[in-house]
Amino acid sequence: MDSVQTFPTASELITSQWFNTDTPISLADLRGKVVVIEAFQMLCPGCVSHGLPQAQQIHDLFPRDKVVVLGLHTVFEHHAAMTPVSLEAFIHEYRLSFPIGVDQAGVNTLPKTMEAYALRGTPSLIIIDQIGRLRVQHFGQVTDMQVAYQIAELVHNGDPYSSDKDQMAEDIVCDENGCLTD
Amino acid sequence: MDSVQTFPTASELITSQWFNTDTPISLADLRGKVVVIEAFQMLCPGCVSHGLPQAQQIHDLFPRDKVVVLGLHTVFEHHAAMTPVSLEAFIHEYRLSFPIGVDQAGVNTLPKTMEAYALRGTPSLIIIDQIGRLRVQHFGQVTDMQVAYQIAELVHNGDPYSSDKDQMAEDIVCDENGCLTD
Amino acid sequence: MDSVQTFPTASELITSQWFNTDTPISLADLRGKVVVIEAFQMLCPGCVSHGLPQAQQIHDLFPRDKVVVLGLHTVFEHHAAMTPVSLEAFIHEYRLSFPIGVDQAGVNTLPKTMEAYALRGTPSLIIIDQIGRLRVQHFGQVTDMQVAYQIAELVHNGDPYSSDKDQMAEDIVCDENGCLTD
Amino acid sequence: MDSVQTFPTASELITSQWFNTDTPISLADLRGKVVVIEAFQMLCPGCVSHGLPQAQQIHDLFPRDKVVVLGLHTVFEHHAAMTPVSLEAFIHEYRLSFPIGVDQAGVNTLPKTMEAYALRGTPSLIIIDQIGRLRVQHFGQVTDMQVAYQIAELVHNGDPYSSDKDQMAEDIVCDENGCLTD
Repeated sequence: MDSVQTFPTASELITSQWFNTDTPISLADLRGKVVVIEAFQMLCPGCVSHGLPQAQQIHDLFPRDKVVVLGLHTVFEHHAAMTPVSLEAFIHEYRLSFPIGVDQAGVNTLPKTMEAYALRGTPSLIIIDQIGRLRVQHFGQVTDMQVAYQIAELVHNGDPYSSDKDQMAEDIVCDENGCLTD
Repeated sequence: MDSVQTFPTASELITSQWFNTDTPISLADLRGKVVVIEAFQMLCPGCVSHGLPQAQQIHDLFPRDKVVVLGLHTVFEHHAAMTPVSLEAFIHEYRLSFPIGVDQAGVNTLPKTMEAYALRGTPSLIIIDQIGRLRVQHFGQVTDMQVAYQIAELVHNGDPYSSDKDQMAEDIVCDENGCLTD
Repeated sequence: MDSVQTFPTASELITSQWFNTDTPISLADLRGKVVVIEAFQMLCPGCVSHGLPQAQQIHDLFPRDKVVVLGLHTVFEHHAAMTPVSLEAFIHEYRLSFPIGVDQAGVNTLPKTMEAYALRGTPSLIIIDQIGRLRVQHFGQVTDMQVAYQIAELVHNGDPYSSDKDQMAEDIVCDENGCLTD
Repeated sequence: MDSVQTFPTASELITSQWFNTDTPISLADLRGKVVVIEAFQMLCPGCVSHGLPQAQQIHDLFPRDKVVVLGLHTVFEHHAAMTPVSLEAFIHEYRLSFPIGVDQAGVNTLPKTMEAYALRGTPSLIIIDQIGRLRVQHFGQVTDMQVAYQIAELVHNGDPYSSDKDQMAEDIVCDENGCLTD
């Protein structure tokens, strides 16, 4: 089945700064592992209440040699309010311990990685398989059970998942679930 | 490692009645599948708020040809209050759709399957592997992420889990987490 | 304003049995106090998760010489499943400490007090003022803050509240919020 | 009883900036009303999850001619991370609609109003009566029901509450409940 359905190669992260890691992280370095990326903004309520605690749980639960959790600070609004200085304090206060990269500012409003992935908003959950293919890209909330199941399946080279870009939530701007780019 | 660590064969269910299934279910019939058993009492607060909704989520999420979810009504107190007639209404009102067996009354207070497994109380989560071995037996609450991960690992013949009988919660009687037998 | 708007006298409770009190309770005996009645069924999910814990909080917080909290077990479905024997175990397991009366069975499905108040379902919150008038009758969930405010206003002979019978939830049968009579 | 127990006059707010109001607000202008002040930091998890939503609920529920809700941004750590620019975006994203003042920076770490009240940390709930006396000062979480009851009692010139400065939580630094100054 995997040979029939093809998945796109996940775009490389384009970042300007990292927290919780001594060296910058690139997806290329993580081949052989499942990579879970939580794209968030520090002032996005749905990220704070749901997405980030979930990412921390994944980081705490799965074996680090098989699953890597990354945060990606994809600021697309209130840029002056969510600088790296503010982010650093946020990471400290919310006890986030996984590596978090700052998505590089673009020429327009959207930061570069966010644009490359065509993310709809925050929080967005991205899952990349061991050979660097984009397998899950989801805007909004996913249950803890669902995301654990999806990650475990990929760890075991299980059934392929299609990207759920087609199942996107309706077009709303920043409610309790998250923030959309338009 | 599996060849080194040995797991006990899970005791067969001893039941007097079933709901949500036309025919009684035995573990012997489920070889080849991972079996998740939620042992509960309908008047146990921790079962109602946590264990049963979690079991329903597992039933809804995992493929039925790989993972089977069963409920087991293990009444060890207030027997007259939790009869099959009451249980049937409970199952209906709480929208539980997986098969639920009634643990057969024993000569003492404890019902027979509960005694065979030496369950400490309710809710208890039991996970049995594809060849019928007891792999997880847990009293109290487990996170959704943890349980999904454990089930997925077993589905893929992953790392063996030891029974966490040694990590039991302290000896308390029926609080918001669950009910203990003594 | 109180002289303009008139409130109906609250119907007397018609009960067959009481728990958590040595003697049966009648509204007539409670003149001079605000009376809060939580009408519930023990197998109604919205009662268990919201209405009853809220009633217990009210019972624990407000001075007993000013505010009296009563439960009323208004069984209108699954009668054989919610007998007084089952209710007694339920009250014990859920640690309810306020007096709870069993609404007397009627000739039809609805019990008598429920019929007299024309309750729409469970949970229903009823608030009666110091001179025995029905001031609040609400089906479904009310926030803790709202209900505390309403009770406190009545304690202090504050602004009269109109019965919100007109703001009833839509006609659904037993979801996570509660159970309707039809 | 009020004549026996004396309450201190609440210190005037010392602020550098206001949001959600056209003109700066002073306590002196609010005589005749009960004033509820939520002292918070935008990066304090307990403020975000509990204190601020509770303050918003109070603002939405109580009559504005009787109860005034104010926020006070009392930054005592990570000053560069919680500037007014960041606060403004935070207020927008979290849909806070009550007036919020920025506590004026002091010569030391603590801002001036926070020091005047000797607040232990954030979130802190302050309630001032109609004649400007400090009636409640509480660090950490209070239930919605409790706070609604306390406010309603004061609105009706009810029983006086003693400041619960003596019942402070133990000395911890910034957990899920809030952040302490030392």
